[in-house]
Amino acid sequence: MKTNRPENPHQAALLRLLRDGPRSRAQLNDLTSDGMSRSKLNAELDRLIELGLAEPDGFAESRGGRRSGLVRLSATTRFAGIDIGATSVDVAVTDGELNVLGHVSEPIDIRSGPAQVLDRVFDLVGKLREQGLYTQLNGAGIGVPGPVSFAEGVPVVPPIMPGWNRHPLRETVSQELGCPAMLDNDVNLMALGELHSGVARQVDDFLLVKIGTGVGCGIVVDGRIYRGVSGSAGDIGHMMVDEDGPVCPCGNIGCLEAYFGGSALAAQAESAARSGASPHLAARLAATGSLTAEDVAVAAAQGDPVAIQLIRDGGRRVGQVLAGLVSFFNPGLVIIAGGVARLGHILLAEIRSVVYRRSLPLATGNLPIVLSELEDVAGVVGAARLISDHVYSA
Amino acid sequence: MKTNRPENPHQAALLRLLRDGPRSRAQLNDLTSDGMSRSKLNAELDRLIELGLAEPDGFAESRGGRRSGLVRLSATTRFAGIDIGATSVDVAVTDGELNVLGHVSEPIDIRSGPAQVLDRVFDLVGKLREQGLYTQLNGAGIGVPGPVSFAEGVPVVPPIMPGWNRHPLRETVSQELGCPAMLDNDVNLMALGELHSGVARQVDDFLLVKIGTGVGCGIVVDGRIYRGVSGSAGDIGHMMVDEDGPVCPCGNIGCLEAYFGGSALAAQAESAARSGASPHLAARLAATGSLTAEDVAVAAAQGDPVAIQLIRDGGRRVGQVLAGLVSFFNPGLVIIAGGVARLGHILLAEIRSVVYRRSLPLATGNLPIVLSELEDVAGVVGAARLISDHVYSA
Repeated sequence: MKTNRPENPHQAALLRLLRDGPRSRAQLNDLTSDGMSRSKLNAELDRLIELGLAEPDGFAESRGGRRSGLVRLSATTRFAGIDIGATSVDVAVTDGELNVLGHVSEPIDIRSGPAQVLDRVFDLVGKLREQGLYTQLNGAGIGVPGPVSFAEGVPVVPPIMPGWNRHPLRETVSQELGCPAMLDNDVNLMALGELHSGVARQVDDFLLVKIGTGVGCGIVVDGRIYRGVSGSAGDIGHMMVDEDGPVCPCGNIGCLEAYFGGSALAAQAESAARSGASPHLAARLAATGSLTAEDVAVAAAQGDPVAIQLIRDGGRRVGQVLAGLVSFFNPGLVIIAGGVARLGHILLAEIRSVVYRRSLPLATGNLPIVLSELEDVAGVVGAARLISDHVYSA
Repeated sequence: MKTNRPENPHQAALLRLLRDGPRSRAQLNDLTSDGMSRSKLNAELDRLIELGLAEPDGFAESRGGRRSGLVRLSATTRFAGIDIGATSVDVAVTDGELNVLGHVSEPIDIRSGPAQVLDRVFDLVGKLREQGLYTQLNGAGIGVPGPVSFAEGVPVVPPIMPGWNRHPLRETVSQELGCPAMLDNDVNLMALGELHSGVARQVDDFLLVKIGTGVGCGIVVDGRIYRGVSGSAGDIGHMMVDEDGPVCPCGNIGCLEAYFGGSALAAQAESAARSGASPHLAARLAATGSLTAEDVAVAAAQGDPVAIQLIRDGGRRVGQVLAGLVSFFNPGLVIIAGGVARLGHILLAEIRSVVYRRSLPLATGNLPIVLSELEDVAGVVGAARLISDHVYSA
């Protein structure tokens, strides 16, 4: 069973407007005043209802004259958002307005390769179907933690995804789920999620910095993801923060990721535990055999000065890079997201302090730097947004 | 006397197409297939001819059937491009296709303030009129070496332009020349110039780095200048290159401009001359009493090792900043422009070497880094492009 698609740009534009919620025909007329007559608008809406893409939804309150009929996206519209991370996968099913109807998550190891990971993904999607959340998907969006060729729908030499290079991920998911699919990197999808229903609603130009195992940046220009000419835009983890710094696994000197991110922080914490600088981290290391960014967060919350200093140092390095990007890009908002962002306000305070001190006054005059609002669901909502942008186009 | 403007978006789109040269009606039909029927196209073209904005231009070669009528922009169309620099002003008059018909330039001191500088500008424009280059201007574009509020058409706290803060420059020029005017910073205009008729034709996403007295960057996204939320995007002169570096006049530590740009280079050259490190520069300093970037270029061309090293060191610092921006922005092209760019291939080689080594392979796989093609006229052509974009919109 295939679902219908809009037949022309007018219908597509109407569907994208309805994605933000039900609207009266009068409201839609106000919102599309550009070039569509009222009779044409009504004809296109009627056609969308015929196609099963939209449906009547009662009547709006009167604005003085006859009450205008409300229209909403078809109640059976369903998108899947699939967010594949390095160590876990999240799957959600949304309605047409991208409200999350069900969300499941489980640990995976991305290094086990596409066959095994996709097996888990399809199991999770199946679970949501068994829960009665959908019978037919209108589309699926997929995120992976590495560079992708957006046009081809494949990962491209992703450093932490051995075995995934050029795997036809978009095609495989589309075949298996019987619907259109789109693939992007996880950071871009988090930015789209925040744009759709998080802290970046109504913001046209912003940056989302994801600090997870590594560090990446989603760039939104004019309400759309900016990908650059070869799709690698936002790859800031290997920007240099100190030309006399440590060697990074990438082979260069003093990269941001050599200083900060989940991997660097875990290594620094273990070193502080072993040297005896932090009894707190040493006790934790003795108990578990290894340390993570999470352990540093716990230690910092309990007042451990070494842990607090590690977070501050990391925040300063992120702040240095971000200060330059803020001068360059002059965004309206910066969002800090990802697992390590849960280090929370110590990290945020340090980043803010460096950016506000180092960037141009003109660029920071009215620049909020905030934590992600959606956290865990940013990726799956962004994935649903990505595929809905595609499905609601013509 | 006022000139006509297009009456609707279709007419505006046709004028922008004709800005790239005469087209046959058949070609225009191919280029605008989106939504305009052939009869509508012909009606709009006839109307543009009636309005005096376009004119017939003979017939195209046959493509098999009847020969299609050629159309071009009105031969009397004239734009003024005004490029105000720190130490000189350039004024050009172009035709509708932005070919430079006449170009004059003279030294000024921007610090003498708007009244005196604009006096010189209007004199130069008058000179071009006396040469018979125009009787009525369709519009004027203006560039200044500092931040502007694009929406208001005024400079905003421009560091090297005392007395110009919030001076109503766009309005003053528009009144004096009796035509629409637009104001932007000089770097954005150089980028627009290269986009229109320089090395960036056909490139949608690129960076132009201007190295003059200071350092700035023009950002083009999707064929349009990206200005950021408060218009300061591209202001990279105060990005940090070394946290243990020298204090910059801006008050921060280790800014790019503290290392490179016309001012820094002149200071470094004088210091090398005084210390005796470079007999060549010492002789030049003794002869003239001060040194400039130009003197360093001459010394380098004659093989002076100190001068060559100064250029290499500067190139390395610019390369460091640019390497990060290339990873972040993933442009299709980087253009090096401005007075100091005339240090030429020693500088370019060093910048390339650092960027190609430090940026992500995915971002540099197919990334040309080249010198400006238009040099002196990039600014005036860009200014004409800016105002023509405005005049050819509806």
